[in-house]
Amino acid sequence: MAFDRLIENIIKMQNPTVAGLDPKLDYVPASIKEKCFAKYGNTLDGAAAALFEFNKALIDSLCDIVPAVKPQAAYYEMYGWQGVKVLCDTISYAKSKGMFIITDGKRNDIGTTMEAYAAAHLGETAVNGESIEAFGADALTVNGYLGTDGIKPLLNICKEKDKGIFVLVKTSNPSSGELQDMKLKTNESVYEHMGKMCEDWGKELVGEYGYSAVGAVVGATYPEQLKELREKLPHTFFLVPGYGAQGGGAEDVKNAFDQRGLGAIINSSRGIMCAWKNQNLAEDDFAIAARNEAVRMRDELVGAIGKIG
Amino acid sequence: MAFDRLIENIIKMQNPTVAGLDPKLDYVPASIKEKCFAKYGNTLDGAAAALFEFNKALIDSLCDIVPAVKPQAAYYEMYGWQGVKVLCDTISYAKSKGMFIITDGKRNDIGTTMEAYAAAHLGETAVNGESIEAFGADALTVNGYLGTDGIKPLLNICKEKDKGIFVLVKTSNPSSGELQDMKLKTNESVYEHMGKMCEDWGKELVGEYGYSAVGAVVGATYPEQLKELREKLPHTFFLVPGYGAQGGGAEDVKNAFDQRGLGAIINSSRGIMCAWKNQNLAEDDFAIAARNEAVRMRDELVGAIGKIG
Repeated sequence: MAFDRLIENIIKMQNPTVAGLDPKLDYVPASIKEKCFAKYGNTLDGAAAALFEFNKALIDSLCDIVPAVKPQAAYYEMYGWQGVKVLCDTISYAKSKGMFIITDGKRNDIGTTMEAYAAAHLGETAVNGESIEAFGADALTVNGYLGTDGIKPLLNICKEKDKGIFVLVKTSNPSSGELQDMKLKTNESVYEHMGKMCEDWGKELVGEYGYSAVGAVVGATYPEQLKELREKLPHTFFLVPGYGAQGGGAEDVKNAFDQRGLGAIINSSRGIMCAWKNQNLAEDDFAIAARNEAVRMRDELVGAIGKIG
Repeated sequence: MAFDRLIENIIKMQNPTVAGLDPKLDYVPASIKEKCFAKYGNTLDGAAAALFEFNKALIDSLCDIVPAVKPQAAYYEMYGWQGVKVLCDTISYAKSKGMFIITDGKRNDIGTTMEAYAAAHLGETAVNGESIEAFGADALTVNGYLGTDGIKPLLNICKEKDKGIFVLVKTSNPSSGELQDMKLKTNESVYEHMGKMCEDWGKELVGEYGYSAVGAVVGATYPEQLKELREKLPHTFFLVPGYGAQGGGAEDVKNAFDQRGLGAIINSSRGIMCAWKNQNLAEDDFAIAARNEAVRMRDELVGAIGKIG
């Protein structure tokens, strides 16, 4: 139910980290790219082959110590449908290694269109009597600007298929306040209002650990808001971007956790994917470096929050 | 520049309509599906073949009287990467017929990730020294909840490549007010604030007709807000969903236009795709019915707003 599977992975590995898989071609070692472009030419097929090899090596290197991966849809769409096939193949591969998959798509729409996104990313698609998983992630990031009509179509799938969503509440970027921090006449800010809607949307989907299937994205770069929202949204599990490259540290993200060390998962994308740059390692050792960084990050987080669960 | 190409199409055809291409398999005639599933089995490949045939017939039937199409990404993603390939092929096909393409993806993210979406849908992707168009639409719908960091990465591409975006401002769904109508302490509503940001984001990208490359999505189901926003956002071109199936009529959407009959394009998806159901025609005549409905809608709109341009 809800994020219970994710939470169990986190407790088992004593690691509240999700590794972002945002494979720009720039991050892929030359040796992989040369091989793939030699085989497929300078094409999107060549790019796709290189990205998948990069992702597989990262997943192999991380899957026994990192509970979840978060592929960012934009970096796959950038390489056309061939890139989107890599998203699909990456999800299958990471699932086969036992990882929990959060597709970061920030999808949003209403009614039957949102049902289509829900079927695409979390559910199944009816094809002439067959039911086929199109992408098959465990969770999806979504944008709640359209209100309940944009969220409700996801809740049935969350319940029936044991899936979850993360709604953008307070994002990690510098300009997030332009809308999200605006004060409403009720004295709440826009992000607080969005957070309350998350609690409301999730209220019938609370799992064994007290967290619902409707989580929230709250940035590591706003530690005070993290703390405030952790208190106000006791059933909302947080996906926390902004650690590392964007400036958030372990003391900042500590605020995202409850007293059991539960309630949040911290994302690192470039910090893990490009770790070889900071470790005096060759780029061909990117997967070893990624693992080193994942161990360092795990130890730093657990040092700040204590034993989990 | 900006939406000038779209506006010129609209003036030439005297038709401010965009046809939504949201091809659920349920909408595709049995004869097409039988043929495709016989060839490819009950698979996503079979579904994709059927969707593309459906789309091509609609485009062939509409391209000389309807200036633009709006494929909704969700309905392609629902059929996996094979469906996403149909999105790509549909865009190419509609472009070859001279249509203006608005990909309805409501994408949103920040920094390099939003740059990846911009490259994916509007720009080009660097692949080992080559620049390749991944999807190649003319415009993209986006969600501005993240603020300027989520919009800025698109503005360069809009300028350099003559593309446009439509930001969600006041959406057509019943629950859009849960966030969008909330009153801020400034006395503005959230949607007014978002609308003002659109004017601001677009201010250096104003084209020949006075409209910038940063448009707004405003629903036909809220005619008063349409009117209010038309007055307050003089440089913002509107994409108006909610006509027909969702209840908006010609008198409602009239408010979206300026005195020249410019400033907006009205979407119809199911109303056009499934028009055969209301015309006592066989489902195999869906493309003829779609054209009939597009003519009816054009005449109704022009009847309400007068000569365009």
